[in-house]
Amino acid sequence: MWHLYHFPLCPFSRKVQLVLGEKSIAYDPITLYPWDAGEEFRRLNPAGRVPVLHDSVRNWALIDSQAICEYLEETVAERPLILGSARARAEVRRLVALFDESFFGDITGPLLHEKMRKRLVLRQSPDSKTLRETSRLLHEYLDYIDWLVDNRRWLAGEQLSLADFAAAAQISVVDYLGDMDWSDHTSAHEWYRVMKSRPSFGPLLRQKMDGLPPPKHYADVND
Amino acid sequence: MWHLYHFPLCPFSRKVQLVLGEKSIAYDPITLYPWDAGEEFRRLNPAGRVPVLHDSVRNWALIDSQAICEYLEETVAERPLILGSARARAEVRRLVALFDESFFGDITGPLLHEKMRKRLVLRQSPDSKTLRETSRLLHEYLDYIDWLVDNRRWLAGEQLSLADFAAAAQISVVDYLGDMDWSDHTSAHEWYRVMKSRPSFGPLLRQKMDGLPPPKHYADVND
Ligand SMILES: N[C@@H](CCC(=O)N[C@@H](CS)C(=O)NCC(=O)O)C(=O)O
Ligand SMILES: N[C@@H](CCC(=O)N[C@@H](CS)C(=O)NCC(=O)O)C(=O)O
Repeated sequence: MWHLYHFPLCPFSRKVQLVLGEKSIAYDPITLYPWDAGEEFRRLNPAGRVPVLHDSVRNWALIDSQAICEYLEETVAERPLILGSARARAEVRRLVALFDESFFGDITGPLLHEKMRKRLVLRQSPDSKTLRETSRLLHEYLDYIDWLVDNRRWLAGEQLSLADFAAAAQISVVDYLGDMDWSDHTSAHEWYRVMKSRPSFGPLLRQKMDGLPPPKHYADVND
Repeated sequence: MWHLYHFPLCPFSRKVQLVLGEKSIAYDPITLYPWDAGEEFRRLNPAGRVPVLHDSVRNWALIDSQAICEYLEETVAERPLILGSARARAEVRRLVALFDESFFGDITGPLLHEKMRKRLVLRQSPDSKTLRETSRLLHEYLDYIDWLVDNRRWLAGEQLSLADFAAAAQISVVDYLGDMDWSDHTSAHEWYRVMKSRPSFGPLLRQKMDGLPPPKHYADVND
């Protein structure tokens, strides 16, 4: 049986949950806040991060969302998500890295720090200069998503791929924190509505973080 | 013909150079400093980062070191570096992520900022508190490498893999900057000496950064 160590607003855990859902793989979610984690979790993952996908029967763990997704891709034939020619697969991985690293580093990471960690752990209020900067950068990324979906059927090409799920996972966290602004991004918004209405998104829309409720529209698949 | 956009101290470009060398793939290196890059490079890679591996004949580009390495792995049979069972491959990718992200974020990234960017771009002196902290964390990573090579033949298991090259690429930058301290890490040091003496390491040991010369021992494969 798979156990997924995650916490509700971790975008990398969300990416893995989407892939598990798409591939119809059963798992037990276990909530773990890395900043509260003890020795036992450190033994499972010396890097001290989530997501970790643990096989409790054979007692071994998959670590790092991308390593987990590549593993699931290699072992579960249902719904391939890194597909096509080697070049097409490289384009999927380029976009996954763009969202996992650049989008996370520019937007999701700073927002989680300002709105989640400062509120729940540090008891400080968010810095308005940082929020203005993330909101400016968000529009640049949404311009790029507009461009991609205006020129291709899905983000990486003709097929739905891991790139769409990596991007949607990051955006779903920004949306939970109340910071999505779709004005002037009709194409990107339409793409996200389609992603959000997939059954694999259900668990993400139901997850709540104690002390940090999502805005009303968050779980509305028509919004 | 492949062109590799890189700069001498980028650890991700170094990882790609090692893989190109191991797989005997010919390429032309092109030095590019992301902070000086113009519109033309942005058109090649909207994320504005190196490494980029550009096919100048067919005019398309591979972007992100991990996407590049996976592509080379899928298309060039010589010297497989992500190998074995799906689980063994996941272990390789876990360690690659550990070095590309955690080691880079804790050590190489801060050192490049303090010693390269501050010196060459910002004209400031390095912050000694940051240097003390990176040196403390470096010992923790070296403890972990000691443990790995005491328990396995190579970092990820019985086979030389991309994990060894990802780790050696990061360490080679720390070494160039004069910050390696192998005391009490005999096993890790022995492993690195072996890595450093591979022919694929040659180009890395010859690359110099203007205005930032490496310490004397840097290119000595017995040191
Ligand atoms: N590249 C990793 C990133 C994982 C990551 O950064 N997880 C965060 C939560 S969103 C974490 O556990 N941070 C705690 C820490 O770094 O100490 C992945 O894709 O799994
Ligand atoms: N995950 C990327 C990281 C690449 C990266 O961070 N490159 C740095 C140089 S070491 C860069 O180009 N930074 C410029 C920037 O981020 O603007 C990879 O593995 O290729």
